[in-house]
Amino acid sequence: MTQANNLPPAPVCPVAALPTVLGALHDPVRLEMVRRLSNAAAPIRCAALYDAINKSTATHHFKILREAGLIERLTIDGQTFQNLRVDAIEHALPGLLPSIVAAANRADATVDDDQAIS
Amino acid sequence: MTQANNLPPAPVCPVAALPTVLGALHDPVRLEMVRRLSNAAAPIRCAALYDAINKSTATHHFKILREAGLIERLTIDGQTFQNLRVDAIEHALPGLLPSIVAAANRADATVDDDQAIS
Repeated sequence: MTQANNLPPAPVCPVAALPTVLGALHDPVRLEMVRRLSNAAAPIRCAALYDAINKSTATHHFKILREAGLIERLTIDGQTFQNLRVDAIEHALPGLLPSIVAAANRADATVDDDQAIS
Repeated sequence: MTQANNLPPAPVCPVAALPTVLGALHDPVRLEMVRRLSNAAAPIRCAALYDAINKSTATHHFKILREAGLIERLTIDGQTFQNLRVDAIEHALPGLLPSIVAAANRADATVDDDQAIS
């Protein structure tokens, strides 16, 4: 197994206080990252978690999510993945993540419907 | 019935998209306003919704909550109240408000416990 990059092991942060978590999630880019991770229910390669931003901007957003304790960085077979800390979030803030992801999924479905109509 | 002030009737905004709602709630002052309103389950006079800020700052925060569709301004017996739009929020974002208020209540109880110990 080789390291695809030289990223040091990222510390896993405790789930932050509610205002910090809401602040991390209120950005649409980060909300979409969390939505994709939650729906996948598995670690996802970084590049699959965003569309219209560059890598350094994505790294900034991952950092905010990681510092809020919402995600952790994993290296699997030399590739970097992000993992949603579902159990830790549910323990710290019961019910919050499912309700936010459900709302984000509904919003995403609405956008898809609108695009299908137009 | 007299008007205590000359505030025009405030328009009631639809509940905003999820990122806007999370943005409205991630500020600790606004989160505390919503927590108090939710726990009261009734309209509350404005001044009872905050502690360490001045009136104009509070007005700013009320405006953000109102524009996110979370609260509405009521005039009852000439006095201004804020009301949490519980049904509208639950309809737009099921489960979100209860999970956030529950987490905020737990955080508040923890602070109270810490103060009782110290």
